[in-house]
Amino acid sequence: MQLQFLGTGAGMPSKERNTSALALKLLEERGTIWLFDCGEATQHQILHTTIRPRKIEKIFITHLHGDHIFGLPGLLSSRSFLGGEDTLTIYGPKGLREWVQFSFEISNTHITYAIEYVEIEEGVIFEDDQFIVTAMELEHVIQCFGFRIEQKALPGELLIDKARELGVPKGPLLGKLKNGEDITLENGQVILSKEVTSPPKRGFVVTILGDTRVCENSKLLSREADIVVHEATFDHTTASHAANYGHSTNVEAAQIAKEAGSNYLILNHISARFLPSDIQTLLLEAKEIFPNSYIVNDFNQFSWKNNTLIKED
Amino acid sequence: MQLQFLGTGAGMPSKERNTSALALKLLEERGTIWLFDCGEATQHQILHTTIRPRKIEKIFITHLHGDHIFGLPGLLSSRSFLGGEDTLTIYGPKGLREWVQFSFEISNTHITYAIEYVEIEEGVIFEDDQFIVTAMELEHVIQCFGFRIEQKALPGELLIDKARELGVPKGPLLGKLKNGEDITLENGQVILSKEVTSPPKRGFVVTILGDTRVCENSKLLSREADIVVHEATFDHTTASHAANYGHSTNVEAAQIAKEAGSNYLILNHISARFLPSDIQTLLLEAKEIFPNSYIVNDFNQFSWKNNTLIKED
Repeated sequence: MQLQFLGTGAGMPSKERNTSALALKLLEERGTIWLFDCGEATQHQILHTTIRPRKIEKIFITHLHGDHIFGLPGLLSSRSFLGGEDTLTIYGPKGLREWVQFSFEISNTHITYAIEYVEIEEGVIFEDDQFIVTAMELEHVIQCFGFRIEQKALPGELLIDKARELGVPKGPLLGKLKNGEDITLENGQVILSKEVTSPPKRGFVVTILGDTRVCENSKLLSREADIVVHEATFDHTTASHAANYGHSTNVEAAQIAKEAGSNYLILNHISARFLPSDIQTLLLEAKEIFPNSYIVNDFNQFSWKNNTLIKED
Repeated sequence: MQLQFLGTGAGMPSKERNTSALALKLLEERGTIWLFDCGEATQHQILHTTIRPRKIEKIFITHLHGDHIFGLPGLLSSRSFLGGEDTLTIYGPKGLREWVQFSFEISNTHITYAIEYVEIEEGVIFEDDQFIVTAMELEHVIQCFGFRIEQKALPGELLIDKARELGVPKGPLLGKLKNGEDITLENGQVILSKEVTSPPKRGFVVTILGDTRVCENSKLLSREADIVVHEATFDHTTASHAANYGHSTNVEAAQIAKEAGSNYLILNHISARFLPSDIQTLLLEAKEIFPNSYIVNDFNQFSWKNNTLIKED
């Protein structure tokens, strides 16, 4: 799993930061990419990465502000033009579907793949045998969601040498043991699956929050998460703005991660008011409260390996 | 007057070329900028120029394909956020107003300045004491317009030395002569305005065409124009595509400029299929037919000085 930040700004694009978009790359896990938000020019940012639009399987939209959605019609059109054929599912607040469809209609755009729209309500919005995604409402000036993405435990691996030692012959019995079934050999000996498999490996939990002031649901979504991506639009000098405009400060984000018992925090949605020299201060202030903090720039990429978050260069 | 190309690509953004947008800078003439088309990320391109969004007075949209309009909601929002207060007029095909307004509504965007929408029909779509803009329908796969922007003749300058020589006293009589009135001096001598003013200076004519196959209206709009901006999506090797998809080749564009008796031709809307090495060939082929041809890249800027088009570096 990798996380790549395609747009880390707030409100408007600047030369340094684009409007919001974040790619959760699940290439090893399922061969696809999930996108979170799609500000204007997200497809332009993607041109400078290895991401192929046809690999995008799902798009989750936190809320309908322009800096989180205005890149959607263009990206969806280009995905079609570039030969995307697989169904794409868009999870978003009520109204998104109508706007995307009107954008296609007005521009006479014909998409060659199927788009499935899911209007988000609180609770589990997606589940399959690999992942479960839960949405909860945050506190912003318009309806806004946060997402908790949980990878289900991975089945243990078959300890083949041990199985052979116990006399299990090559063939279908090995498969049964791997799949958790206990078996009986021809000689009557019972072999338990757990004897010849390693214990299941827990999956990762990533929490990706939309724009929000400090709220209870942020904390619930972040509860013991491996990685929390939290907005940090303001700092302590402008903390009153944060509350008034439905945003958070760097320090508030760190407090959420700390109180939720998360492992890593990534500060995102950085205002253009902050100069490059301020960014280090924002980070240090967060680290004082929650040491495992990062602050991101456009195109930053993180890998999740052996329960550790690694920032790539 | 200057022309700056903000997006010179066709259909989709590439690393080299953005989707369509062209700024007609009338800063000396009226202190404003007119924008022609507004593909996604036009506001991002503007960040890399000296253009200030609040200076944009009018936006003309040739047609509603996504690569010509998807940047509109974002640019209009940012113009508001950046303190734009003057009314902005958008000229576009039927339906544009509804889409822009729906985009504002869904994203809860509140624009602080007035937007006036003009639904284009063939004929004069704007006229004041400086400019007259005429629209005509072109031949594309959806309704598409081309625009002829004519600067009205500039009044001649008062030749003050000559007027003084003829005995005109300082004061209001000079103003009358400058404004084209003939006067009588106290001694009964009649002074004709034309005796003491230089002849009116003809204004420039710029023709900006949307996507189109070769058609009669392109030629009418380009008739004796100083500058024609024409699409060149294809070349002779793909000429059948041009006709089928409602586009033109470089050679066809040159023929239009030649037949219309234009002064300069600028080839625009260049497909990503062409490699940098192909671009020179496209230009040379056009020049064989119409020597005063240019082909553009993003951010190229041209100045109009003394009836001459100068490409800036």
